[in-house]
Amino acid sequence: MSWKAIGIFDSGVGGLTVLKEIVKALPQEDTIYLGDTARVPYGTKSPETVIRYARQITEFLVGRDIKLLVVACNTASAVALDSLNEAFSIPIVGVIEPGARRAVSVTKTGKVAVIGTEGTVKSSAYTKAIKRLSSDVQVVTRACPLFVPLAEEGWVDNEVARLTARSYLEGLREDGVDTLVLGCTHYPLLKGVIEEVMGSDVVLVDSAEETARTVAGILADHDLLRPVAEKGNHHYFVTDVPAGFIRVGNRFLGGDLGDVYQVNLEQAIQVGDGGDDGE
Amino acid sequence: MSWKAIGIFDSGVGGLTVLKEIVKALPQEDTIYLGDTARVPYGTKSPETVIRYARQITEFLVGRDIKLLVVACNTASAVALDSLNEAFSIPIVGVIEPGARRAVSVTKTGKVAVIGTEGTVKSSAYTKAIKRLSSDVQVVTRACPLFVPLAEEGWVDNEVARLTARSYLEGLREDGVDTLVLGCTHYPLLKGVIEEVMGSDVVLVDSAEETARTVAGILADHDLLRPVAEKGNHHYFVTDVPAGFIRVGNRFLGGDLGDVYQVNLEQAIQVGDGGDDGE
Repeated sequence: MSWKAIGIFDSGVGGLTVLKEIVKALPQEDTIYLGDTARVPYGTKSPETVIRYARQITEFLVGRDIKLLVVACNTASAVALDSLNEAFSIPIVGVIEPGARRAVSVTKTGKVAVIGTEGTVKSSAYTKAIKRLSSDVQVVTRACPLFVPLAEEGWVDNEVARLTARSYLEGLREDGVDTLVLGCTHYPLLKGVIEEVMGSDVVLVDSAEETARTVAGILADHDLLRPVAEKGNHHYFVTDVPAGFIRVGNRFLGGDLGDVYQVNLEQAIQVGDGGDDGE
Repeated sequence: MSWKAIGIFDSGVGGLTVLKEIVKALPQEDTIYLGDTARVPYGTKSPETVIRYARQITEFLVGRDIKLLVVACNTASAVALDSLNEAFSIPIVGVIEPGARRAVSVTKTGKVAVIGTEGTVKSSAYTKAIKRLSSDVQVVTRACPLFVPLAEEGWVDNEVARLTARSYLEGLREDGVDTLVLGCTHYPLLKGVIEEVMGSDVVLVDSAEETARTVAGILADHDLLRPVAEKGNHHYFVTDVPAGFIRVGNRFLGGDLGDVYQVNLEQAIQVGDGGDDGE
């Protein structure tokens, strides 16, 4: 048994959808969430930069003594997971593998589409994960860079959102896929218009639930779960001022967000490195 | 006379439109450009964070011995200029003041609209600058958060761009303005659809030219210009890997971009700070 918290990070607020499912599955666990709001978004940035940011954040969370890390950002899961596993010894769970598993179990025609940021799509992480699980499944991918700003602008159900979805997704529908992985934590907010374009016979897969199940499984396997009678505490950190995160986060969690603290990761890293180099 | 370079920075690639005008006006001058591509965009981030980034960048450019700094980013000009002027002694030119001056000289009806990022609009920097120049001019403002991602996606002339422009700008047209300030370096890329919505009798003001004129004036007043027979060299730095910047930058400058170097500002700052503190 371990009383330590579960660490969760995302480039911003989107990973709260994953946190929500983890809290639902494991209400007895403490969580520490970090949203890198001073450097959001990750999806348009290079793998090198995303890896650097992911390492800084993991350093910070490991410094707060977590027992497991959830990389709740698709882009960071796609490009930084191997590097994090090399550098840190705690179990680390991304959102790609669970999403891929769900897609493979859902598809009947064996044709799956994956949409995500440019970083996620370029990495081919979903395609590789799906092929590892079932080499027969065909995977088509499409980057949808405007979906994140649309979701953040709250334009999720207007003509612009509808036209954008059509422009990005029409080709995928014509490819005859029966499963669509929403490979970015923002995309569930656009579910309505995505469903309109894809049609009701295409199943939309969102990794949050499956990721929570994976986390529960690993903690159980390693005997790291807290007693079920407990009630977890939840702490939130962001790298920009908290106001925007609090507003959107409360929408994501139904008004249930607690205190949010701002942290300067550059400074945190600075101090650490200064100590190491200072001989 | 000073042989030092002119420093220019932006959150990303957009400031190259300002660089281009400076090079056109002052071909004899060396320039050093920094695009903060690892942390772009600034427009959605808090003033505190944008000020911190702007100070780090200015520190870096001043360390390369520039004679004048151009803040070619509207958001940073809007929120960080005072703080930079307090901390550094070289002349610092933003893009807000020149844009405001142009707008005041152009308007006939005395009704001016300003569009920009959320950060720029919230700061009221344009409204204040315009009112300082002419208290009679009426200013209406509108944040257009989707214009930057649209420009970066290259969707500048399709139905989505058109609908988005209509949604943001129709109200401004109804307000009867005769001048529209494009208060973000990305927006000139969307000039076509913006003109369609606003109509041909509304003048679009882009600060780049006027900023270049301001820079030339200050250097002349301080006797800091290089001899006109010279031909300047141009150096580019970015904080993420250069590939994306090179591709888009060449489009901005007509294939004229030179070598681009990547720099880690966090590390740069770290080393600097370590030296200062290390007694």
